[in-house]
Amino acid sequence: MSNYVYGRNSFFEALKNDRIIFAYVLNDKDIRDKGIRYKVTDRKTLDRLSGNGNHQGYVAEIKEYKLSEVKDMIREKNGLIVMLDGLEDVHNLGAIIRTAECAGVDGVIYKSHNSVKVNDTVAKVACGALEYMKVAEVTNLVNTLKELKKHGYWVVGSDGSGEQLYDQISYDMNTVLIIGSEGKGMSRLVKEECDYIVKLPMAGKVTSLNASVAAGILIYNIVRMRD
Amino acid sequence: MSNYVYGRNSFFEALKNDRIIFAYVLNDKDIRDKGIRYKVTDRKTLDRLSGNGNHQGYVAEIKEYKLSEVKDMIREKNGLIVMLDGLEDVHNLGAIIRTAECAGVDGVIYKSHNSVKVNDTVAKVACGALEYMKVAEVTNLVNTLKELKKHGYWVVGSDGSGEQLYDQISYDMNTVLIIGSEGKGMSRLVKEECDYIVKLPMAGKVTSLNASVAAGILIYNIVRMRD
Repeated sequence: MSNYVYGRNSFFEALKNDRIIFAYVLNDKDIRDKGIRYKVTDRKTLDRLSGNGNHQGYVAEIKEYKLSEVKDMIREKNGLIVMLDGLEDVHNLGAIIRTAECAGVDGVIYKSHNSVKVNDTVAKVACGALEYMKVAEVTNLVNTLKELKKHGYWVVGSDGSGEQLYDQISYDMNTVLIIGSEGKGMSRLVKEECDYIVKLPMAGKVTSLNASVAAGILIYNIVRMRD
Repeated sequence: MSNYVYGRNSFFEALKNDRIIFAYVLNDKDIRDKGIRYKVTDRKTLDRLSGNGNHQGYVAEIKEYKLSEVKDMIREKNGLIVMLDGLEDVHNLGAIIRTAECAGVDGVIYKSHNSVKVNDTVAKVACGALEYMKVAEVTNLVNTLKELKKHGYWVVGSDGSGEQLYDQISYDMNTVLIIGSEGKGMSRLVKEECDYIVKLPMAGKVTSLNASVAAGILIYNIVRMRD
């Protein structure tokens, strides 16, 4: 099956990165001289191609998303990898990839089964960040963590049960930050691999944040503390 | 028109807060003894009532959302109010209300025209936080800011054009934090009311974060710095 992106931001990011195979647009004034194959078409066709997404007049068939390998995310020091343990919402995946790219994270890892994966919605929500961020699918998160530990990585999980606040440990080390699933948090086996479990302070009656918001707070705190 | 909430979390938050007028459920085992009027019905009816939302077997007609007044958010010191300037996405509004509640923010303010407003999707995304968070609709953001300034509030806007990093000013003051719209950021007139404009560091090629993620980072940073 072909892979499509839609919406202005995603379209022009794909264009910039030479990933467009064929474009469908309402109006060709912005792409006429870009050297891509395209067709000017009607709104109905774009609605269909984008699955009634918010295409803003731009849909493109693109080359498959290139995933990365974990080994390409590894650094000698002050590395930061984000691992998603069972995330269920593609919007959260997209927003986390976007945040990771903005913050200069080395890579995002998720499990290839039983959770969300990179698709067009993710690309759209990520606002182009998917083009620049290393994203890897792995079959076993625990094995991946064991492997990363061999390369000097420390594993920091986030969970309401954590004994330390998120800003009370040092991140001057190669870090894998684990973000748990929206409903259930981290799985038991992944939790057991954590060197630290940290929590965000909760002052109100609701006991958890949206997963991508929590990821943003945790990631930016690490960047801030390292600065 | 009646107001409905759906999904397990929102349903039971409304129940806990006595806001259910009438409930529709797939199975009544959890609500049988709660003293509310209800009907056991089929999935199709619930799909219809929830507008094909993810109702998880629970839909309720509820009393109107009670909005608050800005004056009820004002504190003598270390107050924190979040103002949304032209936010367009109901998911972002819901996520920001949830974050604000978790962080102990005093209230969330948005403009009553030309932007999102509190509805069932917002309630659902807020995961119950709407019940506890003071939310006010105002007709004019600039006038509201001028009024808050009279009460000793300082206005901090967030924008990529900011000269200071978000963690380089002191928040030991009554603060109104402004979150701009997803595409355009803050409006000019609101920007002119800002005492400080701060920015988040951007290390990558994508130049902005999702609005609710940015709000989360900024809000939690204020809480952290005040601690």
